[in-house]
Amino acid sequence: MKLRQLGEFGLIQRIEREARRIQGAGVVLGIGDDAALLRAKAGEDVAVTSDAFVEGVHFRFDHESPRTAGRRALAATLSDLAAMGARPLGFTLSLSVAPSRDVDVVLAVVKGGLDVAAEHACPLVGGNVTASRSFELHVTALGAVTRGRALHRAGGRPGDRLFLSGPLGQSALERARGRVRHVPEPRIALGRALAWTGRVSACIDISDGVLADLAHLCRASDVGARLRVSALPRPPGFEAACRRVKRNPEELLLSGGEDYELLFSVRGSAPIELPPELRARTSLSAVGVLARGGLELVDGQRWEANGGPEKGGWQHF
Amino acid sequence: MKLRQLGEFGLIQRIEREARRIQGAGVVLGIGDDAALLRAKAGEDVAVTSDAFVEGVHFRFDHESPRTAGRRALAATLSDLAAMGARPLGFTLSLSVAPSRDVDVVLAVVKGGLDVAAEHACPLVGGNVTASRSFELHVTALGAVTRGRALHRAGGRPGDRLFLSGPLGQSALERARGRVRHVPEPRIALGRALAWTGRVSACIDISDGVLADLAHLCRASDVGARLRVSALPRPPGFEAACRRVKRNPEELLLSGGEDYELLFSVRGSAPIELPPELRARTSLSAVGVLARGGLELVDGQRWEANGGPEKGGWQHF
Repeated sequence: MKLRQLGEFGLIQRIEREARRIQGAGVVLGIGDDAALLRAKAGEDVAVTSDAFVEGVHFRFDHESPRTAGRRALAATLSDLAAMGARPLGFTLSLSVAPSRDVDVVLAVVKGGLDVAAEHACPLVGGNVTASRSFELHVTALGAVTRGRALHRAGGRPGDRLFLSGPLGQSALERARGRVRHVPEPRIALGRALAWTGRVSACIDISDGVLADLAHLCRASDVGARLRVSALPRPPGFEAACRRVKRNPEELLLSGGEDYELLFSVRGSAPIELPPELRARTSLSAVGVLARGGLELVDGQRWEANGGPEKGGWQHF
Repeated sequence: MKLRQLGEFGLIQRIEREARRIQGAGVVLGIGDDAALLRAKAGEDVAVTSDAFVEGVHFRFDHESPRTAGRRALAATLSDLAAMGARPLGFTLSLSVAPSRDVDVVLAVVKGGLDVAAEHACPLVGGNVTASRSFELHVTALGAVTRGRALHRAGGRPGDRLFLSGPLGQSALERARGRVRHVPEPRIALGRALAWTGRVSACIDISDGVLADLAHLCRASDVGARLRVSALPRPPGFEAACRRVKRNPEELLLSGGEDYELLFSVRGSAPIELPPELRARTSLSAVGVLARGGLELVDGQRWEANGGPEKGGWQHF
């Protein structure tokens, strides 16, 4: 069936029905009024972030299933809450789609998004559906974080050690293969635990690639950094897999993006203590240190502004 | 200059610069991090609403200036906060636009939105810019409202009197003329004042037309209504202006939409008391009453499902 036959209100009804499976503790008033009402706890601020997913730009159905595309949309947006150390309160979805599109495809995308939202107890609380030539999901996620505990990009100081959760490069490798099957998990629980340590001076999630995102963190903190390329965590068999698709492993590690791991700087030399249930499923890698000056790659290849790899030491941004 | 030449980050910088003129009391962390942080007061809930504005669907530059299109986008979204009785905290803008578009046109649309946001002390706190075949603004507005004081669509009871702020039909008339110059003002101050009375049982803003929006309110409240068509407030000279563009005045009044006035029901027979500064610039019209049964139009024409007018009494939905 085409969307044109189901109609705008029919589609909204179907989405609402799918969304009912997600309950959220912070929802005072959900879908269906002029606005939703969310409640943070006393002493909490509200985090808000918006992201867009456009067919042909951010997803293509010849590369991935509609459900995977939807998963990626929510994973990317919730990852921004993770990078703030926030717990999800809810999200809105503003959907643009041509009336000629297949209802099942559109609903599969939405269901994929709801799958990820459900895993993080983040209910759909509102949104919009409109006709468009373009198929687009505009997701706004809201979270809550204890005042003064939120993780910022600014705040890193020279000498703070740099850590990275999980391996990089998997998403870039799948895109290089022309087939996306795996969706990285937003590090919501880790971000909250890091916020509670009170020792994380700066944090960002890896969406554009560790090199670009480290540069964002450094710019916001007004510091430089030394990044140890050999210490960057990578999936098993990564180098061989890269060779098979004729891609440079370091390039995919450094610039691939959509990893949604957290890159953060820590004050002091004491180890970061995570709660036991999180420690069991989280690998933190020490990947460098914040420093005065520019951004330096240690024991890796040099990247030129034109994108080509070159043996060498470091590069300023 | 084309967007392609300015680049994504160049555009974001220009938007950030424009946005700096708006200060908001509730912003802990604004544009530039993974998420923004907003702070409501103790005892307040956070209202959130998303709306979309798509070129060719919601705006056309042969009908209105880019700045007016941007104004309408923000007015429509903030109107949803008004209908909840919320004060604005901030908004995000997720912008889709083709790289071949003119920078000045895109910035004029954004400036129009910021004009309205500035009038309501609602700062831009984040968002996204992406390439797309379609020119779209996806706006998410956040507000704060004292717990238990928010205005809902549900809550109306038979016997509650119906009121409407300001005149209807102006927006529909301008669209019928093919030229939009005037943008209705979101009734933020009125919504907040109504929430404080504690006597408003249900409220909605008029975006789809008073007939459709009254039906939404009635459905949410599980009541019917009698609407006095002759009592619907209209601009001076409205009937003559409608005749000049060969449109039925009642049709534009009832179904025109984009009026962004508030339609609300009041418990009891005492008059609604507004603060003096608001009373001077607000006209409230008594336009009917909630009732058991269906939705009845009194002293007007009957509307058939196919949209044509017919002399008569009332109509069920």
